[in-house]
Amino acid sequence: MSNPLESRVIELGKHVVRMTTAAGSGHPSSALSLGHIVGTLMYEQMRYDPCNPWNPASDRLVLSEGHSVPIVYATYADLGGVVGKSPAAKRALTLDDLKTLRELDSVLDGHPNPAEGFPFFDAATGSLGQGLSVGAGLALGARLSKIDKRIFVIIGDGESREGQIWEALDFIIDHKLVNVCPIFNCNGQGQADYVSKQQSADVLVGKLRAFGYDVQDVDGHKMDQIAAAVAKVGKGSMSIAIVARTQKGWGVDSLKDKSNHGKPLTAAQVADAEASLDKVAAELKLSKASGPAPKPPMPPSANGPAKKDKIAVMPFAEAVAKTGMAEAVAKNKLSTRRAYGAALVALGHADERIVAVDGDVSNSTFASLFGKAFPNRFFECKIAEQNMISVAAGLSAAGYIPFASSFAKFLARGYDQLEMAAITRANVKLVGSHAGCSLGADGPSQMSLPDLAYFRAYTNADDGRGNPALTFFHPADAVAAYRLTEMAANINGLCYVRTHRPDVPLIYPQDATFKLGGCGKLAEGNAVTVVGSGYMTTLALAAVRELEKAGVKCNLFDAYCLPMDAEPILSAARKANGVILTVEDNFAGGFNAALAEAAARSGDVKVFAMTCPRIPKSGKDGDIVLAALGLGVQNIVARLKELARG
Amino acid sequence: MSNPLESRVIELGKHVVRMTTAAGSGHPSSALSLGHIVGTLMYEQMRYDPCNPWNPASDRLVLSEGHSVPIVYATYADLGGVVGKSPAAKRALTLDDLKTLRELDSVLDGHPNPAEGFPFFDAATGSLGQGLSVGAGLALGARLSKIDKRIFVIIGDGESREGQIWEALDFIIDHKLVNVCPIFNCNGQGQADYVSKQQSADVLVGKLRAFGYDVQDVDGHKMDQIAAAVAKVGKGSMSIAIVARTQKGWGVDSLKDKSNHGKPLTAAQVADAEASLDKVAAELKLSKASGPAPKPPMPPSANGPAKKDKIAVMPFAEAVAKTGMAEAVAKNKLSTRRAYGAALVALGHADERIVAVDGDVSNSTFASLFGKAFPNRFFECKIAEQNMISVAAGLSAAGYIPFASSFAKFLARGYDQLEMAAITRANVKLVGSHAGCSLGADGPSQMSLPDLAYFRAYTNADDGRGNPALTFFHPADAVAAYRLTEMAANINGLCYVRTHRPDVPLIYPQDATFKLGGCGKLAEGNAVTVVGSGYMTTLALAAVRELEKAGVKCNLFDAYCLPMDAEPILSAARKANGVILTVEDNFAGGFNAALAEAAARSGDVKVFAMTCPRIPKSGKDGDIVLAALGLGVQNIVARLKELARG
Repeated sequence: MSNPLESRVIELGKHVVRMTTAAGSGHPSSALSLGHIVGTLMYEQMRYDPCNPWNPASDRLVLSEGHSVPIVYATYADLGGVVGKSPAAKRALTLDDLKTLRELDSVLDGHPNPAEGFPFFDAATGSLGQGLSVGAGLALGARLSKIDKRIFVIIGDGESREGQIWEALDFIIDHKLVNVCPIFNCNGQGQADYVSKQQSADVLVGKLRAFGYDVQDVDGHKMDQIAAAVAKVGKGSMSIAIVARTQKGWGVDSLKDKSNHGKPLTAAQVADAEASLDKVAAELKLSKASGPAPKPPMPPSANGPAKKDKIAVMPFAEAVAKTGMAEAVAKNKLSTRRAYGAALVALGHADERIVAVDGDVSNSTFASLFGKAFPNRFFECKIAEQNMISVAAGLSAAGYIPFASSFAKFLARGYDQLEMAAITRANVKLVGSHAGCSLGADGPSQMSLPDLAYFRAYTNADDGRGNPALTFFHPADAVAAYRLTEMAANINGLCYVRTHRPDVPLIYPQDATFKLGGCGKLAEGNAVTVVGSGYMTTLALAAVRELEKAGVKCNLFDAYCLPMDAEPILSAARKANGVILTVEDNFAGGFNAALAEAAARSGDVKVFAMTCPRIPKSGKDGDIVLAALGLGVQNIVARLKELARG
Repeated sequence: MSNPLESRVIELGKHVVRMTTAAGSGHPSSALSLGHIVGTLMYEQMRYDPCNPWNPASDRLVLSEGHSVPIVYATYADLGGVVGKSPAAKRALTLDDLKTLRELDSVLDGHPNPAEGFPFFDAATGSLGQGLSVGAGLALGARLSKIDKRIFVIIGDGESREGQIWEALDFIIDHKLVNVCPIFNCNGQGQADYVSKQQSADVLVGKLRAFGYDVQDVDGHKMDQIAAAVAKVGKGSMSIAIVARTQKGWGVDSLKDKSNHGKPLTAAQVADAEASLDKVAAELKLSKASGPAPKPPMPPSANGPAKKDKIAVMPFAEAVAKTGMAEAVAKNKLSTRRAYGAALVALGHADERIVAVDGDVSNSTFASLFGKAFPNRFFECKIAEQNMISVAAGLSAAGYIPFASSFAKFLARGYDQLEMAAITRANVKLVGSHAGCSLGADGPSQMSLPDLAYFRAYTNADDGRGNPALTFFHPADAVAAYRLTEMAANINGLCYVRTHRPDVPLIYPQDATFKLGGCGKLAEGNAVTVVGSGYMTTLALAAVRELEKAGVKCNLFDAYCLPMDAEPILSAARKANGVILTVEDNFAGGFNAALAEAAARSGDVKVFAMTCPRIPKSGKDGDIVLAALGLGVQNIVARLKELARG
């Protein structure tokens, strides 16, 4: 006897066809391959309440192959699931809403997008390969919150070519996250062609077993087989992976060919497609679906981590003492990366939501201090930065505040993951250490140089809630690193903290305060107005002090934040000689661009830049490399003299 | 009886210890774990001529775990291998040179860096996980050039956590590249900790077998076992992977603990380390190494692909006819991505070095046209963008000119790979399609928005040869796409071509010419000076035409290149009302920043920007999304009216 849900899947298939045709775009063939899997999960196996998608106790579904989303929208609408950007703005989705797919004012975005009002999802997906890592982050969060929930992640077979999937599979085993279940949708077709044999169901089964999984090899259109496999998740000591053999365009003959990826039917083809689905229903002897959608099993009640309005850390002196840095402070030499470690520990004491992930460099980023103080809140991701960033996005969705650290350079391979976190409006804090060229001896393969330009682009975009899509912090000394890390923790949104390798003197008093969008004023004068940032502020300060001895007094600002309020700097420059010099350790496009854009709007201040002018090479230490690039103290002095003369 | 090379490895170990101590940084413990592997390859098994590292017939070594490079430097110096930035500047490396490791004027950069004068290597490495993909690209190039050479890639066990390794392993099987051999250095230690069990030799063996490899499981300190495994490479129909069980800090007791990653010994410890190595030699009953280094076996002679000074494509009309686009041209509607496909085909006809890679979206990027015309020069990389970019770097090292295409958004996960290609000075052309927000219905997960800021940072940096580290092209119409793609092919260095999804009218005459650093002048007037770029030029032109009807005449420039010569635009603005408006479909930091920086230096022109102001969402089509973002034609008209009034 057939499962009564099978007839509902037929109807879901019709909705998929109609909604994508109405939208004029979308991926009906991929969605159709998932009808039985999504139906089994959302109608029957997942414990959740469609009327309360914000319930932290719910089982979750991450649709890593985001383009298949119409099948989830259809099922959720059939259940009358709740949509809206917040519980206050909630409403039930109707089957009628499905035809608004991809419209500007619809919650049904082209790909999964919780931020636009579809809270059933935890993460924006659609750039492939990232969902399993998000699921792993959700599972870590559930474990921390002592919530027994399961996370299902649907991944395309072609998508399983993305290396990040294999990073996540390793991570899940390392951390024994048996509650996360990857489901591979093996329909055999990619976009441009069939999938490689390397991504075939048979080879996938072998790979997954070698990675340590209990593999359930099922017919992805047999709901009993899917249900039996799903029911095993979280029950034993092994992680379950489901390999589901499916057919692209299932039920609709005109969508089965490989040329149909991402192509909706024309309006004229819809009736044929419906008839094709009805014919399959008749062949399978399914009775018509009728009555309301079946209620999925309810989750047990549970709470996520407690929220606080403000996270306040202990005084700087106390934190550095606690983390063994008092001597370095006394010697007036403490790197910003080390001070970041102290800040992270202090944050950990202040709020249980603070968690940290790192990619096998925690003894360089100093996330290791947090790992030592809070071993259950530190998650080693090993050398796999993409997975690390998406895990952080998952932890954020679970209510935690994750700090994700690596060398700034290595984070560049995760910019796509960062972009998806930005679209999700995830509360992730990225921390890139060893930034710029002050790293010196290790050479350019370890130097992050275009990152300031990249991140500045995000700081100028709004997140749709009136906040920047990303807030960027660039501490020049240990006090700034401590306080700016605290500030990052208090922002509900994506932040980036950029730290440096070398020890630097303390520029700010230990009780200095910092302001969002602000900058520090370190010297005053009527000659040139100098703007330093990060490590370069130390060099700029040395240059300004040297010029002071020669009787040339400059303004010196430390720009530690983007987006920045440029006006105080422009205003100071107007009162001086009308000339600004920015001094940076990165390629162009950072603070120089921010000030130049502001100056070019006002038209009454000139802005000149010193930035990293070329691809560097190794040198014995950072100062040697900086000098070779024309960014040493003496280079700054010389440039300031030129600009002071006008 | 011991292999006589073993005693040389003892001496190499001493060099490794001494040179890293002299440098004050470096990774002696990692290097020591590789002595026998590198020794077996470089003294005995690899067919190459240390006096001619540029010989295309040579077997190649890619040191993916770049931090271990001191052992390669030591071996190469022992062989008197040739260094220098070009054959004209060549000289033999001496053992004495080793103590210049990491110095500013040394060819021995902190991590492998062929561009700084170490041509034994083909690619800069040091950011992990990328070498095997480079090796695969070298192997593809060798096959195209009909050269029977082998490529050995040394990968750390901890490094094998990087997903890109598994992308490359799949790619090698797909393309039957049996001449590439990954060698996993399983010393069991990462940087911050021991490696995960998931990266242990035992688990790795199982994983590699599941991925389709003939796995050779060897003791990495037994040269006979290594040699026997290496000798199998390229002999059968299966790809060989070597799992070598090694010891970190081999031979030096004080470097074996896990806390020793990346730490050289102090000068005082060097003698002990040498004694420790001598003690091992005594235990193994090795005789002292003496005499000149053994000559490695010479490669057969062979040539790479033929070089041309200038690659000239057929006329535009001929190319669009050949690729079935004549009708679209006649209708005056052809997307830049499609015109890119025509250009790629035309380039393929003009030069056999042109090759293409794509990530399962060739029917969207239109690289598929090249694949159809030149199936043996098109390499499908499937959904694995990181591998794709590094494969392209390998193809470039083999003398080819690779075009690597995907959605611009998905290339973001390969920015680290791009950065390593930039350090290598690889001749790679990246092509990102569906860029900006004109994509519309698919939503933000498919939109590339910070890319202009990111790439602009590179265009402002010098590559050390007087060229930009990257040249950026942004065609507004099909003619521009055709000619700018041709221009990219003619530049010896990294390029990025940004194309768009929608069909656009032809703005330029079919015989238009384009200039490096130039821009097109599309309208003239004395009101505002408008600068469009890419898809936005079409909208800016419509706005300017509309204003013309109202009697307001604007200058309109199409900025199609970075770095750009800003002076013609500034000069036109000075002659008009002194105000520039840039119109872009991306986050801030692109052409606006370029012009604002130039204007802020000159101080006599104001620059205002229209950029993508927030994270977008889906809309039915691109123009709806652009209008919702304030970037529609009417928004531009309104802004121009404001600025014209002053």
